[in-house]
Amino acid sequence: MLFREFNDLSSVRRLRQLAETPYDLTRPGALDGERLQNYRAATGGFDYLYATQRLDEQTLDSLQDLADEAGLVEQFIAMKSGEVMNRIEGFDSENRPVLHTACRDIFSDAPRHPGATEQAREQLARLRRFLDDLDRGRIVNHRGETFTTMVQVGIGGSDLGPRALYIALERYRLPGRSARFIANVDPDDAAAVLSSIDLSRTLFNVVSKSGSTLETLTNERLVKAALRDAGLDPARHLLAVTGVGSPMDNPRDYLASFHMYDYIGGRYSATSMVGGVTLGFALGHDVFVEILKGAHAVDVAAEERSIRANVPLLMALTGIWNRCFLGHQTLAVLPYSQALLRFPAHLQQCDMESNGKSISRNGIPVSWPTGPIVWGEPGTNGQHAFYQLLHQGTTTVPAEFIGFRRSQYGRDITVDNTSSQEKLVANMLAQSMALATGREHANPNKRFAGNRPSSVLIGDRLTPASMGALLALYESKIVFQGFCWNINSFDQEGVQLGKVLAGRLLDVLAAARENGSKNLDGKSLEYALLTASGCLNPTRK
Amino acid sequence: MLFREFNDLSSVRRLRQLAETPYDLTRPGALDGERLQNYRAATGGFDYLYATQRLDEQTLDSLQDLADEAGLVEQFIAMKSGEVMNRIEGFDSENRPVLHTACRDIFSDAPRHPGATEQAREQLARLRRFLDDLDRGRIVNHRGETFTTMVQVGIGGSDLGPRALYIALERYRLPGRSARFIANVDPDDAAAVLSSIDLSRTLFNVVSKSGSTLETLTNERLVKAALRDAGLDPARHLLAVTGVGSPMDNPRDYLASFHMYDYIGGRYSATSMVGGVTLGFALGHDVFVEILKGAHAVDVAAEERSIRANVPLLMALTGIWNRCFLGHQTLAVLPYSQALLRFPAHLQQCDMESNGKSISRNGIPVSWPTGPIVWGEPGTNGQHAFYQLLHQGTTTVPAEFIGFRRSQYGRDITVDNTSSQEKLVANMLAQSMALATGREHANPNKRFAGNRPSSVLIGDRLTPASMGALLALYESKIVFQGFCWNINSFDQEGVQLGKVLAGRLLDVLAAARENGSKNLDGKSLEYALLTASGCLNPTRK
Repeated sequence: MLFREFNDLSSVRRLRQLAETPYDLTRPGALDGERLQNYRAATGGFDYLYATQRLDEQTLDSLQDLADEAGLVEQFIAMKSGEVMNRIEGFDSENRPVLHTACRDIFSDAPRHPGATEQAREQLARLRRFLDDLDRGRIVNHRGETFTTMVQVGIGGSDLGPRALYIALERYRLPGRSARFIANVDPDDAAAVLSSIDLSRTLFNVVSKSGSTLETLTNERLVKAALRDAGLDPARHLLAVTGVGSPMDNPRDYLASFHMYDYIGGRYSATSMVGGVTLGFALGHDVFVEILKGAHAVDVAAEERSIRANVPLLMALTGIWNRCFLGHQTLAVLPYSQALLRFPAHLQQCDMESNGKSISRNGIPVSWPTGPIVWGEPGTNGQHAFYQLLHQGTTTVPAEFIGFRRSQYGRDITVDNTSSQEKLVANMLAQSMALATGREHANPNKRFAGNRPSSVLIGDRLTPASMGALLALYESKIVFQGFCWNINSFDQEGVQLGKVLAGRLLDVLAAARENGSKNLDGKSLEYALLTASGCLNPTRK
Repeated sequence: MLFREFNDLSSVRRLRQLAETPYDLTRPGALDGERLQNYRAATGGFDYLYATQRLDEQTLDSLQDLADEAGLVEQFIAMKSGEVMNRIEGFDSENRPVLHTACRDIFSDAPRHPGATEQAREQLARLRRFLDDLDRGRIVNHRGETFTTMVQVGIGGSDLGPRALYIALERYRLPGRSARFIANVDPDDAAAVLSSIDLSRTLFNVVSKSGSTLETLTNERLVKAALRDAGLDPARHLLAVTGVGSPMDNPRDYLASFHMYDYIGGRYSATSMVGGVTLGFALGHDVFVEILKGAHAVDVAAEERSIRANVPLLMALTGIWNRCFLGHQTLAVLPYSQALLRFPAHLQQCDMESNGKSISRNGIPVSWPTGPIVWGEPGTNGQHAFYQLLHQGTTTVPAEFIGFRRSQYGRDITVDNTSSQEKLVANMLAQSMALATGREHANPNKRFAGNRPSSVLIGDRLTPASMGALLALYESKIVFQGFCWNINSFDQEGVQLGKVLAGRLLDVLAAARENGSKNLDGKSLEYALLTASGCLNPTRK
């Protein structure tokens, strides 16, 4: 596959011209009923309303050309089929296929990559047996009691995705089951969790693909110490999800072990065993399968070539329009659903770690903007917080609203003839409109400039299937953008330097301690570290 | 007081020149021990390390000139003394003094604004009596049992600050006491909280200055309904914190009432009764007083005129350097403390709602950038998430790291001769260094450009006093920036238009329902709303 540079595409030149006069949303009639009806697309149970983006038919046609010229869908299918997409041409790189979609292809008669899908099926079957054993009381603690809590010990992709999904779907918890998460190397994180659970009835699910993640191994030791202190045998309370042959791939140390494969990146791993074990324990195997089904539906729909009928592709392209042509650096993801509280944090990893890159897949520095800064909080909370800046700040922030027609718990209250859920949805739509149209006013402080682009992703209800779909919509959006920018969305070399420097600082500290130096604790720690000779300035090799 | 426009200041012109060749952090020796030792300041128990900002002595001198020329400290003292700082010259505005500092001036013999401080003392004394009554069993439920849970019902400033502080200080909870929060109009938010508490032993603290906040009143109704359904009398379970004379200022409906005053804005209200009641209940009156003491120490130190000795002022000016002169649109706040999980969300409101403005205090559109987009998550989680973009993305993101030398719980584990807390601090410092210095490499994908500015705010331990100090550091930083940009940091006109449009949509919906229209529920809701004639395009008056 030829990796074409973004700036070399003729559609990019055309889009640059169009961006000189983007669609004016503040013009009277700019947002009429016809536009609102026409500028929407549907995929995987979600409607994507994009009339409030600053684009028109010409822009859409050129974005379609861009998708075609860059071969976005072609690359997506190649990825699903096992082509080596995680690479940089001509330089050392991870050099691997990218097959998170295989975890969901289990519903297909002819999966795009039969080998990876077979491995996913095997792991899922193994999980089912394990969960059955728990359900039937064949796996119990030393007193013969069932396990009630699973604590996932992982960080980054082994934490954010599964955690976001669990919080989103807590409504579906099995009776007497719950999940907790320990991620941070901050000892207070583990301490707070460990002090609030019954250790004897808790399983700890340690998740690390490499089996060598500093934070996770530290926290595993901390957990083991806590179990031993409580007179419990760690091997009866610990589970492992890790790569084949990793230092953690040692079944004797764990009550059960599950595998993840190197063709699934951490930030795309929520639908592998990385998410499956804890979600399956707390929500049930069937709920996890529903998540996979929802994601699969989107994976299939994402192969559609028309951007007007392929929501993740269209989301990717409107994002590129905003980022590269209208020049906006950030993206606010604003779910009007409290259950999606941590979904933006998952997206921060999935998007920013994937596309926060500046080298093309041909190994040359890019001269176009890549991944935006992604951030967000649930509305309507955000309305009472940072929306002031969205409406009247000096920097335009494109926004993606996410909402649902019905609430999860169904415990609405009707006040003034409308329900809480209706108020929530009305607020979301009103924000999108207000950002777009703006408002004139005699008092300059009450003026809204408008022309601030946004879109709305709306589904029926936040269920396991729709959560899976939402996850896959964003995964594919991100992947499409990376293909278009011609960057490798699947490595993360940018996290290495900080690790190296932290290691050097700790080596200096440990050596000084061994030599009996004073002043290493207390106030002088950071100065001792910072002035430690040699460890500060990274070698420039 | 004369409001001088930012662009008219001679120091601004000088800083523009200096910004053409900002300090190069990637030069060999650019970050030597001397710079690391010299570029730090201390206020309120925190050290601010700013050697990794792109500035030098000349820049600092010019930033000092800027502070002096704009009269930042003078304006700060005027604010504390009760001058009407919440206004726009020549136009309708809230036209009020800004006196959140008065809540902390209670420790002073000569408070800057004796009247407001006296009101703060009165409310605090009233709170002490109420908490005493709870402690001594004089206020109990209908079965004579003590109350164990307080649920704060509020949104925006009545939620984010108190919630961030509570999460930060949960370590200090009184035995048998805890707090919860309901903010979102999303009915699932309240449902999740209500389904996990014992209503009969819960107090609901309803917080709204205006007494008319849609979300809060809706949630209050929902809470009252839940109490009645459980056979409980709402008036024995509800507390109110509201403005004098508001619709909620009706003591008969509440077990106890506390006042907030219109000279304290919501986003600056955490140290008023808005935070005091719930924090006092869950953590104890003494802990709340410690928070106030920590904040007060910073309020006093913030009157220092030398930017090298006044951390909030220096934070404000380095922020302005990055925003207006180096052209960075965002700011990442990255606490290396899990307990500060929600502190960035509080700052999003405090900063973005304060300074996301585009009209100067003279009523003219600004032609300089104002408040940045603020976002962040705790490290080291972030390192495994979005740090890729911070190090190698195409957009530079200035960062503010926050950390502590000692952990809160003291449950560290030592691995390889260093403790978890040391690993945490080493990681933080290493990130700051890595962003600054970058690294050359033969493989372009392993190259780090460097020159990405950051600073580190480090304290001894996260305690009530240091939390109060941290809160006040940021409050004052934000206020100084607003003064410098000559914007009104104390109003929030930008949240109005969305509210108006949401109200119109709901009116249309309610009217249609009254008239028996079909198709209002289910899938067509958003289209029905969006195409409702007339309600979409805001009148341009």
